[in-house]
Amino acid sequence: MRFPHLMAEIRPLDEKAMAIAKARQDRLTKPAGSLGRLEALSIQVAGIKGDPCPRIVHKVVLCCSGDHGVAAEGVSAYPQAVTAQMVLNILNGGAAISVLSRQAGARVKVIDVGVAAHLPAHPDLYEFKIAFGTRNMAQGPAMTREEATQAIEAGIAVFESELAIGLDIVATGEMGIANTTPATAIVSAITGLPVVQVAGRGTGLDDTGMTRKIKVIERALAINRPDPKDPLDVLTKVGGYEIGAIAGIILAAAAHRVPIVVDGFISTAGALIAAGLCPLVKDYCIASHNSAEVGHRAMWTYLGLEPLLDLGLRLGEGTGAVLAMQLVDAACRVLNEMATFDSAHVSEKL
Amino acid sequence: MRFPHLMAEIRPLDEKAMAIAKARQDRLTKPAGSLGRLEALSIQVAGIKGDPCPRIVHKVVLCCSGDHGVAAEGVSAYPQAVTAQMVLNILNGGAAISVLSRQAGARVKVIDVGVAAHLPAHPDLYEFKIAFGTRNMAQGPAMTREEATQAIEAGIAVFESELAIGLDIVATGEMGIANTTPATAIVSAITGLPVVQVAGRGTGLDDTGMTRKIKVIERALAINRPDPKDPLDVLTKVGGYEIGAIAGIILAAAAHRVPIVVDGFISTAGALIAAGLCPLVKDYCIASHNSAEVGHRAMWTYLGLEPLLDLGLRLGEGTGAVLAMQLVDAACRVLNEMATFDSAHVSEKL
Repeated sequence: MRFPHLMAEIRPLDEKAMAIAKARQDRLTKPAGSLGRLEALSIQVAGIKGDPCPRIVHKVVLCCSGDHGVAAEGVSAYPQAVTAQMVLNILNGGAAISVLSRQAGARVKVIDVGVAAHLPAHPDLYEFKIAFGTRNMAQGPAMTREEATQAIEAGIAVFESELAIGLDIVATGEMGIANTTPATAIVSAITGLPVVQVAGRGTGLDDTGMTRKIKVIERALAINRPDPKDPLDVLTKVGGYEIGAIAGIILAAAAHRVPIVVDGFISTAGALIAAGLCPLVKDYCIASHNSAEVGHRAMWTYLGLEPLLDLGLRLGEGTGAVLAMQLVDAACRVLNEMATFDSAHVSEKL
Repeated sequence: MRFPHLMAEIRPLDEKAMAIAKARQDRLTKPAGSLGRLEALSIQVAGIKGDPCPRIVHKVVLCCSGDHGVAAEGVSAYPQAVTAQMVLNILNGGAAISVLSRQAGARVKVIDVGVAAHLPAHPDLYEFKIAFGTRNMAQGPAMTREEATQAIEAGIAVFESELAIGLDIVATGEMGIANTTPATAIVSAITGLPVVQVAGRGTGLDDTGMTRKIKVIERALAINRPDPKDPLDVLTKVGGYEIGAIAGIILAAAAHRVPIVVDGFISTAGALIAAGLCPLVKDYCIASHNSAEVGHRAMWTYLGLEPLLDLGLRLGEGTGAVLAMQLVDAACRVLNEMATFDSAHVSEKL
């Protein structure tokens, strides 16, 4: 079992690098603090990387993909076949995440941890299929504890492969029809909030579908009784393979001192699992956006993170994260490239 | 007088282009509406350009610069010399707007409409100096009505020069020590809100400075009695040359069907003047961000625009606008580059 060992390597942020970055921000040719959250972001990244002048060159979006047995309960507006179809669309460059990643100069890799179809080999596809979808969590555990560990390990393995190529920042993403259902179960299990308060319409359920989805999640929680103090138990009983892989990516990135831009509702469920396993990872996470999916805000509040964007997005794939990645890049460029009062001969405050 | 003629050319958005763009958004491989404000942005740009598949290639930031006689009243935390120093810093590529524009792939041009110093010639500097700063509005009108017109015409002339080179989107920006003071007077005069409610700390005034600034603005409004129904009178009496130039840029961009990303507190004061002269321009404006400067929200509300970003920025120069420009670019790329359900063979909603 590799991941408990990896977690032991996660350290607090580098306070010294942060202090130097903060002092430099205050010498740049602008009123101190006037770039607001961009300044704080640059200081956080300095602390993450242990580098007072961090640069963002290599950007990667890791899109974790899997299917869900619970889709059989009619909890999604789309058929299960869409997961595999959309994986191919991403690999072919036609999905929203493909377009937005091209703009941001980020490479996109897809990780299959549980798509319910055979996928053709592709240079941008990592094949780590654990099963052809999880089991139906409304009838019993979604996976075994061994499978949950396998999903986390897959995320770690992919992260480390990409790190070897060059990686300064990672965005989480996902594709998996019905995956707002396990994500909702996770947030309810971990925060204790009632399902009705954190369940949303996902890809676009109608009222009947919403009522059904809430009942299915309540049943899954009642049958499986996940232990909120044991994040691996929550992942096992009401999670998804792609959510486990996201947790693994977050743990690996924190261990290797790489900032993680966490995407939407599903990705943040992965962050809840990772933060439950190792609370220090929260300092390595950047909250990309506040999703239109109703329970997302509760997740950020629980993690103590404030999202950068609020654009009514509810697509997933990593779309919000890759948009926010550009703000992180902007923040680091400002820190590195702006003139100081001295270098530009600009007078200071009266 | 060129600008009343130009205003007569401003037309409503192209409804047909918007309808085609909306129909295309609903065929792209994502749940309809799931890209939230990005979808709405792409449709707005389609309507502005009269093109159902608009592309953003040439991006320009126009940084209007001028000084203010009212600086003599001690309303800014920085000395007046900083205006010229920062213009040089922008031209040398060391200012925040320089760094962020390089990231966005936007060119930056500075327009001198009233800097209180001789500026050396530079290929990125437009020289349209009306005077070495406005007069002190706490003692009488900031400028003559002819000068106000000249400032607007300068903005139009620069916009049209840049359009001839290639321009798909324009961001407004500014540099002018003390210019939150005229901007505050403008928002108070036009909306009728009391000065205390819309005045902020600008580049960082302390409590004594804030009290003084509020009194100075109240005095300027009492002495000059600008007519809220006559935007040119407001600009004349309590405005600034750079604010007039921004209004001119907005009018010209709307007349030429180019989207305008409006920056912070000062730029939005320019938008208030432009919208007062021709309410149709509001449809051509994109609200970039909500500034930390306290009165900014009231301006957006008055204009009926909802800002895209809220990052605690309060720097001006066009920094918030150039960050938001990337979101507009993202929105148009999605519309142009994403696959449709048919082209990618993705199944539709059940």
